Amino acid sequence: MRTLIKDVTVLTLDENNHILPAASLALEDSAILAVGAVPAEFAPDEIIDGHEMLALPAFFNAHTHAAMTLERGWAEDLPFDRWLNEKIWVAESALEEEDVYWGTALAAAEMLQAGIVGFADHYFWMEQSARLVAESGMKALLAWCHFGLGAEKEVGQATFADTIAFAARWNGAANGRIHTTMGPHSPYMDPPAVLARFAEEAHRLGVGAHFHLSESEEQQRNSLERYGQTPVAHVADLGLFDLPQPTVVAHCNVVTEADVALLAKKNVYVVHTPKTYQKLALPMPPLVELLQAGVQVALGTDGPASNSDLNLLEVMRLAGLYQKGRLADPEALPRMQLLRLATQLPAAALGFPESGVLAPGRPADLILLDTTAPHWIPRHDLAAGVVYTAHPSDVAYVWSDGQLLYRRGEFLTLDIDRIRWEAERRAFRMVGQPMSSLRAYQG
Amino acid sequence: MRTLIKDVTVLTLDENNHILPAASLALEDSAILAVGAVPAEFAPDEIIDGHEMLALPAFFNAHTHAAMTLERGWAEDLPFDRWLNEKIWVAESALEEEDVYWGTALAAAEMLQAGIVGFADHYFWMEQSARLVAESGMKALLAWCHFGLGAEKEVGQATFADTIAFAARWNGAANGRIHTTMGPHSPYMDPPAVLARFAEEAHRLGVGAHFHLSESEEQQRNSLERYGQTPVAHVADLGLFDLPQPTVVAHCNVVTEADVALLAKKNVYVVHTPKTYQKLALPMPPLVELLQAGVQVALGTDGPASNSDLNLLEVMRLAGLYQKGRLADPEALPRMQLLRLATQLPAAALGFPESGVLAPGRPADLILLDTTAPHWIPRHDLAAGVVYTAHPSDVAYVWSDGQLLYRRGEFLTLDIDRIRWEAERRAFRMVGQPMSSLRAYQG
Repeated sequence: MRTLIKDVTVLTLDENNHILPAASLALEDSAILAVGAVPAEFAPDEIIDGHEMLALPAFFNAHTHAAMTLERGWAEDLPFDRWLNEKIWVAESALEEEDVYWGTALAAAEMLQAGIVGFADHYFWMEQSARLVAESGMKALLAWCHFGLGAEKEVGQATFADTIAFAARWNGAANGRIHTTMGPHSPYMDPPAVLARFAEEAHRLGVGAHFHLSESEEQQRNSLERYGQTPVAHVADLGLFDLPQPTVVAHCNVVTEADVALLAKKNVYVVHTPKTYQKLALPMPPLVELLQAGVQVALGTDGPASNSDLNLLEVMRLAGLYQKGRLADPEALPRMQLLRLATQLPAAALGFPESGVLAPGRPADLILLDTTAPHWIPRHDLAAGVVYTAHPSDVAYVWSDGQLLYRRGEFLTLDIDRIRWEAERRAFRMVGQPMSSLRAYQG
Repeated sequence: MRTLIKDVTVLTLDENNHILPAASLALEDSAILAVGAVPAEFAPDEIIDGHEMLALPAFFNAHTHAAMTLERGWAEDLPFDRWLNEKIWVAESALEEEDVYWGTALAAAEMLQAGIVGFADHYFWMEQSARLVAESGMKALLAWCHFGLGAEKEVGQATFADTIAFAARWNGAANGRIHTTMGPHSPYMDPPAVLARFAEEAHRLGVGAHFHLSESEEQQRNSLERYGQTPVAHVADLGLFDLPQPTVVAHCNVVTEADVALLAKKNVYVVHTPKTYQKLALPMPPLVELLQAGVQVALGTDGPASNSDLNLLEVMRLAGLYQKGRLADPEALPRMQLLRLATQLPAAALGFPESGVLAPGRPADLILLDTTAPHWIPRHDLAAGVVYTAHPSDVAYVWSDGQLLYRRGEFLTLDIDRIRWEAERRAFRMVGQPMSSLRAYQG
């Protein structure tokens, strides 16, 4: 398959931040063949007029629990303990295996529509998530979440051995679009012996790990009491930062200077999900200080039960605006850096380090934004438009490995009508409500 | 004109926060005739199927400089003084009168598309803004901005007498959709004698005032040195808080306890524009404390040169998320309160206190949101969907005083193609760039 996009503005995100006006972009099979001028002999199967469109690397979402779309809006304006104990866990106790497929499918549709082609998913019954990723054409790093002592099965869970078997079976599947990783929940939910076993299995399978880390002062205090170490030092000592593939750690809201230095030395990606931190009132991680220390940071949405959606444009904006305000420095986190935190960095965290730049030979993971809506005019600065103004509805085309997955409202690999129906009816079943019962506001 | 919207979910925003599923909504001329059940004898001219749509009061934007759309994206990631002196004022020195019309028209299109029907505009050459409001069917509170000693004319300015004449001429125009108000810039740009004259003229004309107030520690310090009073106390003593109509003050980033008590006692609306505060790194006002003290607060976007856009959905989200995080309290600013800050409160600030509730007899200022996009599913909580998830592209219908102004991408009162062209070519002229010259990123 050969696609020519002509007369398009290209935001390359290369090392010189080149922006190419009125350029051509040639895609061949899964890769970018040319950017700028296209060889005369290139014979495209399809030509797309890129006039008034902006091509840029697709977004990657470095931490989510995709199927938790089913609980979106079920627990709002609540403190974290009530959010979790009274609402989320109660709903999740009714989760059935096939729900994960439809919840993930709904998430995939929402992400594609917002220009996201890859996601790091951390949840239960991950065969369902893998099946959806394979069918959808997207890319993913999949972890079957596990907590406890390793033997028991609970609702939505698997034994330790089950999660390892899943990782072994699916790693590299779907023409390499699926990567798997070890999925401990966190050092506060998994005892040290289990975490050490995950590190061993990661070496055996040649993968990394993905887990929650150091989200609160309380977690840090408990770790110091129990293990004499911060959560970061604790997991490092258990070998979880020295794996064959990157270690993806969500959050790091509370870190010491020594933690930061340690994170910077290792092949670790810290995932920053600021909407969740604000919505659930968790401490905001010191994003700029992490970056200045050389820590690899990638943006993510977190699960849509806490975050309400899967919109990395919004996450990118929130991350930048918050840090500018906090540091009283409008020059903090300039727009090109924010774009990298939502594209190159999370792609690398997921094990796709070649994505995130539009250049010959790179994977054809890219999007076209339509810049004709009123909020884009005048087009003084298109990068600023993406970072500070763009809406998901500006996303017009989405490719993953050269396959067109979304085109102007149309999902080319997903049956959106069935997904909407299945996801909504299952979501209402989980919370014990009849379909479409709209309740008056409580409180 | 009689319109029936049937089978719609209605978020009334009445005092009991009623949400009515599968309801009907009848509009007659400029008002809402019925909500819930509709009289059998109601004979509509048009019937709209509201299935899977949510009706709610339209948004009002309590502080903007609409025509500054022309400078959107022209000054990015810069400190405030460089943003203003090196970029914004240089561009504005090339502003011509007709530019204001097209810049305001572009802003109007963007606002309608985001569900905003009214705005408080504070800029220059306001005849142009008034003309656009009259033509567009929107509502507005218009202030011709004035600073200095009152006599001189500068680029884009008028004499004191000119601004008063504008306010007298247009107040109540366009069937009452246009309100005017006094437009001093601020107590740091207008000397006390000029501010006192504005108060006098406000009484003579039966209007209020709209200006910038207490945006920084420096402004507070200078006011204390010069006048022995905080900016808030200073303008109160000059009579600007005791006018026939509300006084709209933008920002109040830095306020004392005495300032807050004073603001709470007067018919003043404090406009909160958090995206600008974060983007330009101004201090964040104590929003929750202002509300707890009984101050009337309304949300606004500020001008799109600082804020990058005119999206009150985003402003509402930023305001709520920031305060939850700051106070470590996820229950702070619950969703129904945030909705009021973006609808009822700014409508009242603009002099339309009957808007902001869907009930019989109220003005037909309302919108329909389409809730079928993936990010809405499952529809556990539609109010949370509006506040934490909705995109401007969900806005399907917009009415102002019962006139349909926007319907699924179509502007019924604006020539969007001409507006885009005129606005962009004028914007590029102002900054001395050839049209569509896309520059490589600098820095």
